[in-house]
Amino acid sequence: MTNKLTLALLQLPVTSDVELNVRRAVDGITQLKTNNPTLELAILAESFNAPYGVEHFPKYAETVPNGPTCQALSRVSKQLGIYIIGGSIIEREGDKLYNTCTVWSPAGKLIGKHRKIHLFTISIDPVNGGGVQFDEAAALTAGSEVTVVQINQQKVGIGICHDKRFEELARIYRHMGCSMIVYPSAFCICQGPMHWKLLQRARATDNQLYVVTCSPARDNMSGYVDYGHSMIVDPWARVQREAGEGCELIVEEIDFDMVEDVRRQIPIYKQRRTDVYTKVKTELSKLNIV
Amino acid sequence: MTNKLTLALLQLPVTSDVELNVRRAVDGITQLKTNNPTLELAILAESFNAPYGVEHFPKYAETVPNGPTCQALSRVSKQLGIYIIGGSIIEREGDKLYNTCTVWSPAGKLIGKHRKIHLFTISIDPVNGGGVQFDEAAALTAGSEVTVVQINQQKVGIGICHDKRFEELARIYRHMGCSMIVYPSAFCICQGPMHWKLLQRARATDNQLYVVTCSPARDNMSGYVDYGHSMIVDPWARVQREAGEGCELIVEEIDFDMVEDVRRQIPIYKQRRTDVYTKVKTELSKLNIV
Repeated sequence: MTNKLTLALLQLPVTSDVELNVRRAVDGITQLKTNNPTLELAILAESFNAPYGVEHFPKYAETVPNGPTCQALSRVSKQLGIYIIGGSIIEREGDKLYNTCTVWSPAGKLIGKHRKIHLFTISIDPVNGGGVQFDEAAALTAGSEVTVVQINQQKVGIGICHDKRFEELARIYRHMGCSMIVYPSAFCICQGPMHWKLLQRARATDNQLYVVTCSPARDNMSGYVDYGHSMIVDPWARVQREAGEGCELIVEEIDFDMVEDVRRQIPIYKQRRTDVYTKVKTELSKLNIV
Repeated sequence: MTNKLTLALLQLPVTSDVELNVRRAVDGITQLKTNNPTLELAILAESFNAPYGVEHFPKYAETVPNGPTCQALSRVSKQLGIYIIGGSIIEREGDKLYNTCTVWSPAGKLIGKHRKIHLFTISIDPVNGGGVQFDEAAALTAGSEVTVVQINQQKVGIGICHDKRFEELARIYRHMGCSMIVYPSAFCICQGPMHWKLLQRARATDNQLYVVTCSPARDNMSGYVDYGHSMIVDPWARVQREAGEGCELIVEEIDFDMVEDVRRQIPIYKQRRTDVYTKVKTELSKLNIV
């Protein structure tokens, strides 16, 4: 039995025309599957269907799974018989909005729904890489569930963008048996050069699994300029494949045997000193720290 | 009140002559302090006083704090009025051996003693960067205490080499209020190119503090070839200063105001979802995971 998986990253431009954005995603996946019959998983970017911005969120929000974007993803996954990790869309439920990733099976069924746990609220001064101010928390509600989906024999953890900054979430996915974490993302051009690749490689080396990101293509005329650089990092923390800034469709085969390989050679998971961590954390929790 | 600190990294060669190694360290610190009167902290490498290797450990072990290496460090710290993070030596206590870092105050007092918590047991195949087999656990006993020392106004966490691979230890130091973690280290030339800089930058960006390593100089004729590349990484995860491979003495001023600066601009510590982590960990612990 092979442990290989062929996956695609769709680093697409995002316009203010939702129908156009979704059609591009559907057409892109269809074309990739046609050209690569072994393709089993397609991954989209955070907010792939609509402009990203606090002012845009209410306008572009849809329901899950009955809204038009979800229905389009469901149809194409079933039609092509592939998994789709559907980047993210702004989800409306009642009077609340979430930043939500949906995951679709080859039968077109919703098999996972991840609501971004760590909202992107940040205020970097202009002197640092141009700076960025953003406050997702002003418009969105945070999710409170971790999300693991089964793709073939693999368990795959899902996070969205800012979730990637929190090593404790990745550690949990490692505990849950994941061999890959996928973060649909939209880092800006301020944070990107500083931390994009670093965070992805850090999660990979600490947890010894594949870490995959998918970003929208860069549009310098946009109000929020995406970094691009969608990336596959292997369990040794090597960059296996990295997109540039523009529109780019990547197809790559990865081999999950490498996960067990690095875990055998650098057996850090077994070497964790949970006795020490627990003892210290117990002391700290008495002080209301942790 | 300034939050600046001038520190030195001594990336020195290590021979089989302990007296020579210790004299070089003492002379090096003395010379650096003479040339840099503002120097307040000197940092040495893991196993700076003796060859690193399972077969060497029993032969070169000393007591702490009364052995000759410790006494030399105590004397020079008092004489110069500076802090010393004394890399590591093999410590003998009863019939047990530890890989131990001692920390000395400007009054020559022992203010911290860190016994390596995560022993370096690893078996990387030759196909990966030449490979490495090592089993510290065959000869050493692991420490079971975390170590935080106070250097001026700063809390500084201590780890030794392989300890750097475990993000949970660094997270604990962040909880304990540290603004710097120092890892005297001796990565080999197999692991070094893969993970040395990555791990150091990962700890820095996740915990938003300075991360400092000090390695012995490379000796290609040695049984265990050190990577070198002693390094200071700032709280933005930028490499502020990096040594090459050979004998190198670095003096650098760092500014702890930068710690609060990045923590304000990227407020991830407050954004941690301890509610989610705790809930999941509780479920996992019922399954005997975590």
